This record gives sequence, C-alpha cells and structure tokens, in this order.
Amino acid sequence: MTKKGKRKAGFASARVERLIRTAGAYRVSADATYRLNEILTDYATGLSKYAVDIAKHSGRKTVQEPDIKLAATK
Amino acid sequence: MTKKGKRKAGFASARVERLIRTAGAYRVSADATYRLNEILTDYATGLSKYAVDIAKHSGRKTVQEPDIKLAATK
Repeated sequence: MTKKGKRKAGFASARVERLIRTAGAYRVSADATYRLNEILTDYATGLSKYAVDIAKHSGRKTVQEPDIKLAATK
Repeated sequence: MTKKGKRKAGFASARVERLIRTAGAYRVSADATYRLNEILTDYATGLSKYAVDIAKHSGRKTVQEPDIKLAATK
C-alpha cells in the first residue's frame, strides 16, 4: 500500500529515494520512500506553521530566514 | 545570501516554498525557503542513515518502510 488515506506526501519521490540512497541504501522499497516523504511533509508543515506564527507575531507578512531558524529550535 | 558553503539543499525549492505557503504564509523570502530546504535535507539524511543501519542490522540490503518508521521514533 503506497498511498495512505488523507496523509500527503509533498516531495518528489525520486528526490526522497535519492536521499535514502545517498545515506548508503543498496535498495529502497517504494513504501519506504513514501513513508519518509510523509514524515518529511509532516515535519516541514509543522515547522512552517510555527514560522508563520513567528513572522505574524513580529508584525510581518513575509516569512524570513530567522523565522525558520527559530522555528527549527522548537 | 542564498547558497551557504557546503550545506546542501536536496529538494526542489518550489515545493518547499509551497509548503510554507500552505502553512499560511502570505509571502516567503528566498532565504527562508533555502533554510527550510537545508533543515529538511539534514533531517532526512540523518533519518535515512539510521534507517540504512537498521536494515543492515536486520540482514537486509533493502530499506523497507518499517526501517523508516523505526528510525523516525529515534
């Protein structure tokens, strides 16, 4: 099972697979790639939401690099 | 400054920017996108290396979904 309900994989699967291969994998299952894609998408979404809140809190409409940096320390 | 030395951004920047926008951003600076890309690449690389170790430890050459899942709990 590759697609799982409403969860969303936001990145190109070839990119995700390449990352796992670069990490030393000999072979990578499609499910593994999809699962990592989901995990990354969830992580990125959570971090982004926090960065958006930080930017708004600072009275800005633009998310800037320090917002991302601060969000990542959470 | 968008490119920063040897650190690598592994994803398509348009995808990363879209994720930040989906999280509610009105505008996103290029630096913010690049930084998130770097953070995600580092996170994915670390997780993948751990998943590769888990697969090898289990006597497999193929990284499978449960390896990614277990690696993500670390």
